[in-house]
Amino acid sequence: MSPVSGTEKKIIVSDMEHLRKLFIMPDSPDKFIEFGRELLSLIHSFFKEKGGIHSEISLGELYSLFSDTSIPDGPSLLKDVLEEVRTRLVAHSVKVGSPYYIGHMTSAIPYFMILLEMIIASLNQNQVKIETAKASTFVEREFITWMHRLVYGRDDSFYRENLLNRDFRAGTVVLDGTLGNLTALLVARNSLFPSDGEFKGIRHSGVATAYKHAGIDRAVIIVSQRGHYSIDKVARIIGIGDENVIKIPVDENDRIDIAALRSVLDGIRESNADGSERTAIVALVGIAGTTETGSIDPLDEMADIAREYGIFFHVDAAWGGAVLIVDEQREKFKGIERADSVCLDAHKLLYSPVSMGVTVFKSLEALGHIKHFSNYIIRPDSVDLGRFSVEGSRPFSALKPWATLKVIGRAGFKLLFDYAFGLTGELSRIIDAHSNFERTNRPDLFITNYRFVPENVMALLREKMKSAKQDGVDKEKSLTDIAAINELLNELNIELHKALREEDASFVSRTMLEIPYYFRQNIVILRAITVNPLTTKAILSEILNQQNRLGLAIYESEFSRRFECFHV
Amino acid sequence: MSPVSGTEKKIIVSDMEHLRKLFIMPDSPDKFIEFGRELLSLIHSFFKEKGGIHSEISLGELYSLFSDTSIPDGPSLLKDVLEEVRTRLVAHSVKVGSPYYIGHMTSAIPYFMILLEMIIASLNQNQVKIETAKASTFVEREFITWMHRLVYGRDDSFYRENLLNRDFRAGTVVLDGTLGNLTALLVARNSLFPSDGEFKGIRHSGVATAYKHAGIDRAVIIVSQRGHYSIDKVARIIGIGDENVIKIPVDENDRIDIAALRSVLDGIRESNADGSERTAIVALVGIAGTTETGSIDPLDEMADIAREYGIFFHVDAAWGGAVLIVDEQREKFKGIERADSVCLDAHKLLYSPVSMGVTVFKSLEALGHIKHFSNYIIRPDSVDLGRFSVEGSRPFSALKPWATLKVIGRAGFKLLFDYAFGLTGELSRIIDAHSNFERTNRPDLFITNYRFVPENVMALLREKMKSAKQDGVDKEKSLTDIAAINELLNELNIELHKALREEDASFVSRTMLEIPYYFRQNIVILRAITVNPLTTKAILSEILNQQNRLGLAIYESEFSRRFECFHV
Repeated sequence: MSPVSGTEKKIIVSDMEHLRKLFIMPDSPDKFIEFGRELLSLIHSFFKEKGGIHSEISLGELYSLFSDTSIPDGPSLLKDVLEEVRTRLVAHSVKVGSPYYIGHMTSAIPYFMILLEMIIASLNQNQVKIETAKASTFVEREFITWMHRLVYGRDDSFYRENLLNRDFRAGTVVLDGTLGNLTALLVARNSLFPSDGEFKGIRHSGVATAYKHAGIDRAVIIVSQRGHYSIDKVARIIGIGDENVIKIPVDENDRIDIAALRSVLDGIRESNADGSERTAIVALVGIAGTTETGSIDPLDEMADIAREYGIFFHVDAAWGGAVLIVDEQREKFKGIERADSVCLDAHKLLYSPVSMGVTVFKSLEALGHIKHFSNYIIRPDSVDLGRFSVEGSRPFSALKPWATLKVIGRAGFKLLFDYAFGLTGELSRIIDAHSNFERTNRPDLFITNYRFVPENVMALLREKMKSAKQDGVDKEKSLTDIAAINELLNELNIELHKALREEDASFVSRTMLEIPYYFRQNIVILRAITVNPLTTKAILSEILNQQNRLGLAIYESEFSRRFECFHV
Repeated sequence: MSPVSGTEKKIIVSDMEHLRKLFIMPDSPDKFIEFGRELLSLIHSFFKEKGGIHSEISLGELYSLFSDTSIPDGPSLLKDVLEEVRTRLVAHSVKVGSPYYIGHMTSAIPYFMILLEMIIASLNQNQVKIETAKASTFVEREFITWMHRLVYGRDDSFYRENLLNRDFRAGTVVLDGTLGNLTALLVARNSLFPSDGEFKGIRHSGVATAYKHAGIDRAVIIVSQRGHYSIDKVARIIGIGDENVIKIPVDENDRIDIAALRSVLDGIRESNADGSERTAIVALVGIAGTTETGSIDPLDEMADIAREYGIFFHVDAAWGGAVLIVDEQREKFKGIERADSVCLDAHKLLYSPVSMGVTVFKSLEALGHIKHFSNYIIRPDSVDLGRFSVEGSRPFSALKPWATLKVIGRAGFKLLFDYAFGLTGELSRIIDAHSNFERTNRPDLFITNYRFVPENVMALLREKMKSAKQDGVDKEKSLTDIAAINELLNELNIELHKALREEDASFVSRTMLEIPYYFRQNIVILRAITVNPLTTKAILSEILNQQNRLGLAIYESEFSRRFECFHV
């Protein structure tokens, strides 16, 4: 561009008239629609375009694209800013809706979400208070009711009464699973240390005074080692401390090991009895399903244990909860209806955009443990939703899953989930039939863990495993070799994952998991999440073929020699 | 509607083909645009329509409009759901953007926000991780940089270096002011109890162990009595306890009373020295400005005190922070650049839709106190924004204030804020010139507190105040009378507020504040927030006239006789 054309850039002078026009709908909707139409085309072509998932731009280039260090001085034309959005931002966004993007829970969403967001933004209701959210307060209440019923299945009259109750509190909408767990575990913590005589309760007097009053040294949260990282985060936030999150080992299906759980609880009981360490239990957390392996804990057994030991039972169903919509799948979740609280995310399996979740409580008294109010908003006798939320100002996000449940319905969700189960099963079959891949989980829900293991390395590993499991002379040597081989495979799979990112034609994520089968060694895993209704079985084959091609190339050029020593 | 036409309702059969179509952009953008166009018109007419602010529907009717107790079974046509949204929801939403709605911080927003929300939803980036948020990670970093510079004003090279730093952490985007305060006070709490020898830090070992290690009985947060209710909420959440939030009285300008603050701190110092009670101070919180009175604390003096006593200094600028954009206004905020952390909301004075905020930290090390990671996302050596946030999954909300700052620019924001100052000044003048209203605050920012006090009651009250302030024989009697008169005026203003809600032609909010002038009695206040660029001086007069008319009617029919006894 010549310097001359640069100087031709229109100078915009700010004046109140110009600004005021930005704040009102144009007199005729035409101009607004003109912008809207351009945007819709832009969005349309972003989705239609072939090409990589992440765009080829390097992080370095991105640093420099967005490296203004202060707020721009002058105004800019909206169309110029939208053009910048198009060329710099949309062009370098991640195509999370692509059928080849099967690495994270962020999936394709129905296109009408875009329309719903338009409504949410234009109404700009603030859910904290009825004075800023009239009908939307009631839509949210209705949505919470649906979610409570989905989990707890009380009868119609129970819900009718409660919907008519000003002090309705079957649950609360939250930003995401982290806030969902935070809300539930706060309720659990607060209900464990209620006011009692001189002691005014943990909310009022704090954690240290509460422990002193209860005569305990520590309080713990118990969850399997597959618990989401937000459980640790919440323990840090609410003053329990993450060293007091007790992680119970999982079985080979990545579900909490019930015997190990009982043994921990009995240990606590004993040391409480003999006074060696006095421990209170804030909550037992079940998972449905785990974010890394898609497994659902044995919730019914956990509910038994929670009752037996008198523990608050929370289920983190952020990922899997929506599958309860399908009656045929409820058996997997058996016991969830006995949980004291359950959180689930709309931006996961209710196919809403990020982010929104909900936490529901079995007891309608539970949310009273975090109730608060203030004089200028959220009066105690109001219907204000803000009385029961960790968050303050909140958008009307509940419109999205509420409308989706109407448009798609139970019947539609059954189809979507059946389809996702079909994809997940197919991916298992492809991996199992392939000689260069090893699958490491048996998911209850839509998440497949596997890794690239070249055929001859697999044969070697099997042989070593066999002798490691026998008490022969080779046992020790085999154990050492297995660890070393897995280390090398970890390196190989990290390389493979990088090469996949480089080629950028598909995306799976990568994690590291302690695998019971391999004597609890940390294994690098490829993780596929198959919930996008646009992903097909053919696409899954394509993705595996790509991984096989790249995996073999990396193996041959960098790794095959390093495996040789184990063949001796 | 006849039963016949009811049965004519189209039955929609769910099948995967139908569902899949919902998940992709239609082949041509036309159909999408057709829906979009309808919606845009709908939104347009919602804003153009004359009529009440809250819609006339009763809460009872709203209960029954949204009283389905379970998830709908079948699918519905999108157009039917959108029609329901139009007739039931949009029609009964609060017109928070109306120029007559001056009661809460939720104001009119620029119409292009609707376009930005469309982009955010269609890209559906999840800010937790670069793998789900590529360019958007860098836009958010740029926005945080702008906000850091707005507050701390470091030089260009400082920001250039930091933008290029993978471990960038000048601040973090949050859901709202509550989460903003939570983030800041967590950092404050954690940095007060770091790991130390055998003690592994408060995050790891929890609040009780931390207190024991530090040899303290309690930890406190100090804020003026005008502190937002979220400070109490945060104290409850992070295990400090709300009884350990020390509320310092305010002066007649609603700013923290510095002498009272010093006296509290000296008291703590003394009881720490003599061992009678051992107290640690988590943070001193300054406010800019208060949500109820629009006042800004003397931040520079508070910063001096924080340095002198070695206390973490946080400024809650959720409401007022954006005004820093106007150079001429910075003097009011003097000292904010010395705060350890500052939070500010985009959905307040950056005119974004609800909700988004940001917390920035003076020290780039600060956010290290809440850093966390996990294996499958948020690796410690990544650029993932999720490393430093209380929240997990988060939408790309930063696009909204980022684009707004480009479109409107510093120059435009100066105009907007100058206009808002003009409105606020005008409202003061109208109230002061009016014989039936009493103003109770002198705001630094856009919030006016006042109440309806009929002329003759005002005269009575002034007379009683005069004798109450002298040591005459009438002193006691006058004090009692003042309290009783104010009680009656409280009732009267509550009635007036209800009548205003009934008539629904304008909206101010109502609160109750302890007023220093009236010997710290709790006084019911009408609260007006004048930040909407569509509100005019003429509209303010209209609103006051309406309040005067209703106030007089209520006074004459229900209250005048009850005031008579005081005239004796």
